[in-house]
Formats: sequence, C-alpha cells, structure tokens
Amino acid sequence: MQNLMHHTVKELLKAHGLAVESAFTGFFAVNEQIPARLLDAITYSFNAGGKRLRPALVLESFAACNGAERDRDAAVKAACAIELIHTFSLVHDDLPAMDDDDLRRGKPTNHKVFGEAMAILAGDAMTTMAFELLSQVDDPAIAVRLINELSRAAGPSGMIGGQVLDIDGEGQSLSLDQLTQIHRMKTGALLVGACRLGAIAARADDKKLDALTRFSEHLGLAFQVVDDILDVTGTAEQLGKHTQKDAGHGKNTYPALLGLDESRRVADQHLAQAFEELNSFDDRGEVLRLLAKLVVERKS
Amino acid sequence: MQNLMHHTVKELLKAHGLAVESAFTGFFAVNEQIPARLLDAITYSFNAGGKRLRPALVLESFAACNGAERDRDAAVKAACAIELIHTFSLVHDDLPAMDDDDLRRGKPTNHKVFGEAMAILAGDAMTTMAFELLSQVDDPAIAVRLINELSRAAGPSGMIGGQVLDIDGEGQSLSLDQLTQIHRMKTGALLVGACRLGAIAARADDKKLDALTRFSEHLGLAFQVVDDILDVTGTAEQLGKHTQKDAGHGKNTYPALLGLDESRRVADQHLAQAFEELNSFDDRGEVLRLLAKLVVERKS
Repeated sequence: MQNLMHHTVKELLKAHGLAVESAFTGFFAVNEQIPARLLDAITYSFNAGGKRLRPALVLESFAACNGAERDRDAAVKAACAIELIHTFSLVHDDLPAMDDDDLRRGKPTNHKVFGEAMAILAGDAMTTMAFELLSQVDDPAIAVRLINELSRAAGPSGMIGGQVLDIDGEGQSLSLDQLTQIHRMKTGALLVGACRLGAIAARADDKKLDALTRFSEHLGLAFQVVDDILDVTGTAEQLGKHTQKDAGHGKNTYPALLGLDESRRVADQHLAQAFEELNSFDDRGEVLRLLAKLVVERKS
Repeated sequence: MQNLMHHTVKELLKAHGLAVESAFTGFFAVNEQIPARLLDAITYSFNAGGKRLRPALVLESFAACNGAERDRDAAVKAACAIELIHTFSLVHDDLPAMDDDDLRRGKPTNHKVFGEAMAILAGDAMTTMAFELLSQVDDPAIAVRLINELSRAAGPSGMIGGQVLDIDGEGQSLSLDQLTQIHRMKTGALLVGACRLGAIAARADDKKLDALTRFSEHLGLAFQVVDDILDVTGTAEQLGKHTQKDAGHGKNTYPALLGLDESRRVADQHLAQAFEELNSFDDRGEVLRLLAKLVVERKS
C-alpha cells in the first residue's frame, strides 16, 4: 500500500510537472521577441530536472481546498510562476559572487554554460515572467492576490531576504533561533507561498488558508533540516551537486548545531506537526501528506 | 517664458520625485522583516540622485489623460514601481560580469559599496517590490493591467531582452535597424511603459493610450541617440560616470554609425514626431512636451 502511494505521488509530481511545462511553453509562444540565447538560458535551468515540488504543493493545495475546474488555470499559472521564481533563485545563488557552484542537479550551472552576464539576466527575466504569467489569470481579484502572495514570499522579507541573512551569517556562530529565522525566510517562505497560492486560486476560506499556512511552515523547516542532513550524509552522485560544502563555507547548519540524530528528530517532529494541520482536510489532504513524507524521507 | 517653463518642469520633477520617495518609504514601513543591510543597499541606489524621468512620465501621462484624484495613488505606485525596475536594471548592469562600472551618478556603484552578492540580491528584491507595490493598488482590474504592462516592459521581450541583445552585439558590426531594435527594447520599452502606466492608471481610452505609446516610442529613441552622443561629447564630471567607454567595449552607437551631426538630426526628428502625438492632448500635454525637450537637450 505504501509503495502504491509512493508510486502515485511520483506519477502526480510528473503530471503536475507537465502542466507547468505546458504553461511555460505557452508563455513563449506569444512572446516572440525574446532573444534566442536568453530563451535557451531560461529553458536550460527551468527544465533541468527539478522535482517540481513547489508546483505540486500549489496544485495539491488547490485540490485539498476543493478548487473548481474553472479556477484550475489560475492554479497552473501560479504553479509555473513559483517554479520560475524558485529557478531564478537557484541560478543567481549559483553565481560566482554567491555560492559559486558549477554543478546543479548533475548538470553544469547556468553561468557555466551561458556565462555570468546571461545567468544574471536569465534570472531577472524569470522573475518578470512569473508576474506577467500571474497577470494573465482570468479573475483580476484572484490575480492580484496571487501576485501579492508571490511577491512577498520571494521578496526582501521572504526568500531574497533570507538569502541575505544566510550570506551575512557565514563564518558567524548563530543560535538555533537565528538559524531557524534564516530558513523560514530563505526556504520556508516559498514553500508556504506555494500552498497559499493553491488555496487562493481555489478561493479557500481563511480557516483552510491558515491550516495550509501552518502545514507548510512545518514542512519548510523539515525540508531545510533534511537538506542540511543530506549535505553531511549524501554523496555528490545522489544529490547531483557537491556536498559537504556548507562546512567549507562556514555555514551554520542544523547538524552542526544539534548533531545528526537530534536534527533527524527535529525533522520528524515538524513532519508530525505538518500532518496534524491536514486533519481538517480529510481525504483531500492525503496527497499533501505523501508529498511532505517524500520531502522528509528523500535521499537527494 | 522658456526659462519659466524650464523652471516649472524642474519643480515638477522634484515634486514627482518626492511622491515616489514617499511611496518607497511607505513600503518599508510595513515590511519590518527586511534585513538592514539589504534595505541599505536598496535605498542607496534608489535614492542615488536619479532624475526620476520615468516617474515623471507616469505622473504627467496620468495628468495628460485627465486622471481622477481617486486614481492618483495607483499612478504614484506605478511611478515608484517603474523607478524600482529602472534602478534594479542599473545595479545589475553595473556588475563586473556586465558593464563593470564603478561609478554611477557620481557615486560608487552598488557592488563597490555593498559587494557583488548584495548588489545582485538588492536588484532582485527591487523587482519583487515593484510588483508587490502594484498588487496594493485599490482597483484589482487596474492593478492587473499595470502589472501586465510593467512585467512586459521590463521582461525578456523588453528591457532585459534588450540588454541581452546589447551584450550579444558587442564587438559585432550592427545595422541601423539592429541598433534601433536593441534600443527599442533596452531603453525604449521602459519609457513607453512609463507613459502607458500613467494612462492606464488614469483609465484612458485606447485613442489616448495609443497616442502616448507613439509619443514615448519616439521619445525613447531620441533619448538613446542623445545618450550615445553624450558618451562621445560629455565629460565624466557632467555625467557622473565614465565616458567614451562605449567605443572601448566595442559597442555599437548612433554616432559611430551615423556621425555626430546626423545623430543629432535623428534625435531632433524623433522629438518633433513625439511632439506631434501630443497635439490631441491640448494644454494637458504641455508638461510632457517640456519633459521630452529636457531629455533631448540634456547635457548629462
């Protein structure tokens, strides 16, 4: 049964991925003026084999909130928009002036293939594309809420702000509270944003929106703890990127602060708390539960 | 009379600048989670003494279209948003991987003061802020149109795409048509966007929107021709940045293709065509006329 469920969620991730890629391709079909090399650079990173976790969270939150068929296009656009924002952040994070990574998902990073200038501009373009896509959502009232949500999740109080705190914290000794705050912003904000985008597209009431917010806050923290654990225990082959570089960069991590065993316990605890928030969704929350499990038990 | 007008337009630029700075400050008042160093980096470049030409075009297009007082807040937000996008583009363009400039408006460039990583992130944050600000416009129908307009003007078919073409064209011999297309996207798209944002905020009809589109297309081309001329004839002291670096970078310019005299003639011709488009606005177009004149006759 568990294997069947695991199979099902992988199939769902794939299906959601295809929906998002279709929205991505559709965007370019009506934007013919885009320079070919820029389009190549954007497409290279967008289709580099990511798990499409954020799109899946958008679309499964939409489903959990009983989103109507007529609103599905808004959810798909939101899923594509948040994956564009996620991809832009990876491209910029990999730059020499930032994490200086030459490998991502087993492939050369964007600036290694297209050069630094193009990687910067491709990231910039993905950001504006995300908001253009959301501005095309049929119902303006929903479109504006989605744009407000995504801009706040990605912006200086969210993901980008977290990246700044992360860089500022390098080489410094941080408390657990400080580390948690960085991750709430750097990784958590976009995962929370994903679930909230799905709920907003589904016109969910505040009770559902709040429950999914708390669910994804716990999921985000579990995600980052596991990320830190994998950097210690995983191999480059499994992860498709260089490992154990956190310690080399003087980065603060959960295993460094808490040890591996306690870190694993913290991840499991957040997963349990995330699960609790799904209780009010009955069966409709089942796939979100499986997605959360997949995140915490992943090996790469 | 001409001097009086010139005085008036300078005063107006200043007043519009203050409105935009107030919207900028207001944004941060309700976003308390922004890391201090990121806020410093964003503020440094946003308030670095730019002419606020794009905000002035937004607000004067709004006035020319007889925008109502209740819609003025939307126009001010749009003015602030487009200045954020313009500022982000300058910060990223100045990066070592791009134009590698250490001086901008007479001050050290953002990455010289805050480092490359922070300059990249400050630019990224300004982009999301622009869209967050527009998502706060009262009327969702207007908000969505403003967001669509700004994202397209800034994005891969507009400003960012033009920057890619500009970089790709370096060291190559371009035709006048190719050079014009680069400038239509790199500089023109945002100037056109500015006028259209103002018209949209004012709920202008298509006739007015189209006239302002054509006005700003000519203004954009005049602006870039003058920019190229000033790079040849201006001094670093006047411009607040290093001059004659276009030739050094193997960049294609109007003076290089056409000579200085013919370039000046082309600029004047575009100004005349821009003026023609303002005829239907009667007195209400007078300040836009003065702004356009200021652009073409500027010395820095």
